[in-house]
Amino acid sequence: MKTATLLVRCPEQRGIVAKLADFVWSHGGNIISSDQHTDFEANEFLSRVEWDLEGFRLAKEDVHGKFEHLARLVQADWKLVFSDDRPKVAIFATKQDHCLLDLLWRAQTGELKVEIPLVVANRPDLADLAKNFGAEFVCLSFDANNQEEIEKEQLQLLRDHDIELVVLAKYMRIISGDFLDRAPTIINIHHSFLPAFIGDKPYHKAHSRGVKLIGATAHYVTPELDEGPIIHQEVTRVSHKDNVQDLVRRGRDVERRVLAQAVRLHVEGRVMRYGNRTAVFE
Amino acid sequence: MKTATLLVRCPEQRGIVAKLADFVWSHGGNIISSDQHTDFEANEFLSRVEWDLEGFRLAKEDVHGKFEHLARLVQADWKLVFSDDRPKVAIFATKQDHCLLDLLWRAQTGELKVEIPLVVANRPDLADLAKNFGAEFVCLSFDANNQEEIEKEQLQLLRDHDIELVVLAKYMRIISGDFLDRAPTIINIHHSFLPAFIGDKPYHKAHSRGVKLIGATAHYVTPELDEGPIIHQEVTRVSHKDNVQDLVRRGRDVERRVLAQAVRLHVEGRVMRYGNRTAVFE
Amino acid sequence: MKTATLLVRCPEQRGIVAKLADFVWSHGGNIISSDQHTDFEANEFLSRVEWDLEGFRLAKEDVHGKFEHLARLVQADWKLVFSDDRPKVAIFATKQDHCLLDLLWRAQTGELKVEIPLVVANRPDLADLAKNFGAEFVCLSFDANNQEEIEKEQLQLLRDHDIELVVLAKYMRIISGDFLDRAPTIINIHHSFLPAFIGDKPYHKAHSRGVKLIGATAHYVTPELDEGPIIHQEVTRVSHKDNVQDLVRRGRDVERRVLAQAVRLHVEGRVMRYGNRTAVFE
Amino acid sequence: MKTATLLVRCPEQRGIVAKLADFVWSHGGNIISSDQHTDFEANEFLSRVEWDLEGFRLAKEDVHGKFEHLARLVQADWKLVFSDDRPKVAIFATKQDHCLLDLLWRAQTGELKVEIPLVVANRPDLADLAKNFGAEFVCLSFDANNQEEIEKEQLQLLRDHDIELVVLAKYMRIISGDFLDRAPTIINIHHSFLPAFIGDKPYHKAHSRGVKLIGATAHYVTPELDEGPIIHQEVTRVSHKDNVQDLVRRGRDVERRVLAQAVRLHVEGRVMRYGNRTAVFE
Repeated sequence: MKTATLLVRCPEQRGIVAKLADFVWSHGGNIISSDQHTDFEANEFLSRVEWDLEGFRLAKEDVHGKFEHLARLVQADWKLVFSDDRPKVAIFATKQDHCLLDLLWRAQTGELKVEIPLVVANRPDLADLAKNFGAEFVCLSFDANNQEEIEKEQLQLLRDHDIELVVLAKYMRIISGDFLDRAPTIINIHHSFLPAFIGDKPYHKAHSRGVKLIGATAHYVTPELDEGPIIHQEVTRVSHKDNVQDLVRRGRDVERRVLAQAVRLHVEGRVMRYGNRTAVFE
Repeated sequence: MKTATLLVRCPEQRGIVAKLADFVWSHGGNIISSDQHTDFEANEFLSRVEWDLEGFRLAKEDVHGKFEHLARLVQADWKLVFSDDRPKVAIFATKQDHCLLDLLWRAQTGELKVEIPLVVANRPDLADLAKNFGAEFVCLSFDANNQEEIEKEQLQLLRDHDIELVVLAKYMRIISGDFLDRAPTIINIHHSFLPAFIGDKPYHKAHSRGVKLIGATAHYVTPELDEGPIIHQEVTRVSHKDNVQDLVRRGRDVERRVLAQAVRLHVEGRVMRYGNRTAVFE
Repeated sequence: MKTATLLVRCPEQRGIVAKLADFVWSHGGNIISSDQHTDFEANEFLSRVEWDLEGFRLAKEDVHGKFEHLARLVQADWKLVFSDDRPKVAIFATKQDHCLLDLLWRAQTGELKVEIPLVVANRPDLADLAKNFGAEFVCLSFDANNQEEIEKEQLQLLRDHDIELVVLAKYMRIISGDFLDRAPTIINIHHSFLPAFIGDKPYHKAHSRGVKLIGATAHYVTPELDEGPIIHQEVTRVSHKDNVQDLVRRGRDVERRVLAQAVRLHVEGRVMRYGNRTAVFE
Repeated sequence: MKTATLLVRCPEQRGIVAKLADFVWSHGGNIISSDQHTDFEANEFLSRVEWDLEGFRLAKEDVHGKFEHLARLVQADWKLVFSDDRPKVAIFATKQDHCLLDLLWRAQTGELKVEIPLVVANRPDLADLAKNFGAEFVCLSFDANNQEEIEKEQLQLLRDHDIELVVLAKYMRIISGDFLDRAPTIINIHHSFLPAFIGDKPYHKAHSRGVKLIGATAHYVTPELDEGPIIHQEVTRVSHKDNVQDLVRRGRDVERRVLAQAVRLHVEGRVMRYGNRTAVFE
């Protein structure tokens, strides 16, 4: 079944659910799944509507235009996803392979509905892995003075490959605000249960604090380090028997799972940002 | 905020989401939360719609009648729940107090939106507990020949107290099909991760099988023992260090949590049965 | 079976496991469970040894004296617990009843091997609950000037009841360093996944940050607020549909479970503090 | 640090902990971790002792002989593992790649301390994957009449490669009792929470039963299908929105995690079988 999905956020207002349902219904679409929630504190209406494209009388390329009219009327932020689209994703990595391998493998099997034509790294270690899965691998090394230049090259690569989503898969560099302004949406995996242990060496900090659970957090990247809207989090149990290396090992399994889930939720049109939060329609 | 909630199940059909939204909207209601899903294998449309009663132009007692018209049209099974109703619940128990105490306490705090006027037991142990929370306690003991008679008395008690839901909170008796036919909806807690370890002594069986997780299952009661539609399940980790008594202890925490959650989901109109399954709108 | 349990912490040294086993064995004891771990970073040896008292030739009151000799030799911190002891526990609370009820109930059933003769509160709300379970309830209200005086009274109450452990069960006051110096061991439940959301209103902070899991942390109380050694932590899933009140409700279930588990681990001699961490022998 | 680990099971008897500690200590070994448990119902003593080989006066090849003497005395089943050994593992697979890829990758990174020189399949699909990781890939297809012959070939391959452990990584064939008798230890991953949904198509059965959690179970293979001693189990949440294909997708993540964990526990000498159960020393 080919479907279209509308993700909508607008100020709370009477009758909005009926209006969205009518938009689909009046063009011959059949809603197969929908989920609406009103956040009264934020005064936000949040919605995800998915419908069967069979019998829908608007062509894919015309849906945007038609919906824009209604969107303006209700002052909506919105996003449209077609189930047969395969957005192009670039993965940024450094040296650790677990998240990169997991994403490449899930894209290859079709579980993640994306193409990954490009892997960008600041070290050469992961070249073979990327190439094995048919992705172009570009290594751009930073030194004390070339951040601006390197980021320019990175942005050009993103444009050349029509990248719609960047995934930082254990990319051990801080992204500049300037890069952020010009890049498409960026998802990062942080190896702690945010907001605990912001910044570097979270497993060392977790070990030192003696926590009994460690976690990982996937979030959209914003200018404030590790402060962006959280998409997904999971934890796993640890004990006094685990040294820092054990936490790193246990954490890898959580990291790759959390990141893959966040990417899946994003590309299936299940995540709507509002304020510094997300609504996730699972 | 006072709300009404419609839980609807009907054969999959085009435009049904719009029809439900219009029903609320056309009478001045404002949907604050809705969730729809179509199960294409079962050809069932499943929906939960909750709306603010402020501004809604139908009186509570008139909603049923008005909706019945639409319901017939779309061949719907449906249920209507008002957030300010407090359905009367009877708890059946035997000797163990953990589930009973937990439910009585949650009702008392208002977390569970029910009244519990009646506790029925086949042993006298829990009388004080029930009375402390203001419930009538009735002990009816079974012997080899009186099941029919006792169940008759139980049914009379349910009628006398206008009971809408019966919760078997570690009630160590098997209910007859005849009782089932005449009683309101019944929810049971089974102390295993069904369908593993059906029947009695599941912790003994779990210990003997050497499982690494034990669980509990809350389900609607049907004539087939432990085979009714599952509402909620959880598990907890165990090890070779746990003997049967340890499993019982660890299991109690899971049992009371799972049962309370299932009762909450049911009374808030979040569980729709279809076939031998449930849709749970969390 | 009556058992004795030795909890030992000492500098890592060769042969220490054999020495502990020999101590028990040479007096006729039969070890039924033991667990040792060496933390090489901290250079600490950590051990829990439990043995059957049947056939053990030292009287309960003589074990301390005999072991003290070996303890000095190996520079050990240690603790001795007998399975038939019932240490006296005081619970400090304010207004919320979920943790207090849970602890009183678990003590009553014998699952927690403690007596709870005393409940101290800074508000009168929980008096009936405490008395129902046979505990003395003392309400001592704070004002701007009487903290020193009130804490003096509290300390006197602890002495009068031979209290060995104080449990802060949602006690909404900060304890003075002076009180800490004079009181027995104190365990607190903090309603967040520490070190995230230290201090007050953690559920508000969690909601505002948009986390996808909330947690609770039981820890020993030290002069630094919410910085003491962590005994146990758990989390539960939340979503954008949960407002602050929902987090509070969901959090209660985690809080009472985490606190009860921490108290159980402590009284069964399963928790050894070292540095600002704990070894937990489950 | 290079270590040796003794895994011991023997009838419960007085002084056994001291005897094991003395064995290590008397040859100059320093125990860095030990864990003992007595199962009084089964009358079994279960122990894992790990010690630093530095300063240990027995050569690796002499430890077996020396310990055999003590083992006979106490009637022990036992196993000796050296941390710098890399046992050779063969993986049997069919068509699904998630478990195979995960194990090959974990062996390559060194997280799993094994060598995987051989992948045996009954279909050709996974040849490239195996070869990419340097394993020999052998495809042996079954027909109605050749099971005996094929299993003979498989056993010869295991001998040729000095295989110590066989892992069935979604190998969709039932192993004969005869093969079992002659093969080394075999670990299987079953895609359900055993003992629920024994046999084939567990996800279909789980969907049909309407369970709210699905799981995976890693176990030693015995002649009774899916009845062998369980090593590890985990579950993940599902809902009415998940069709069978969704269960398969969600299940894959659990399967590979559970299988990798079971293999790790086994090769690190953390799993002792007794009866149809396991003691797992984590």
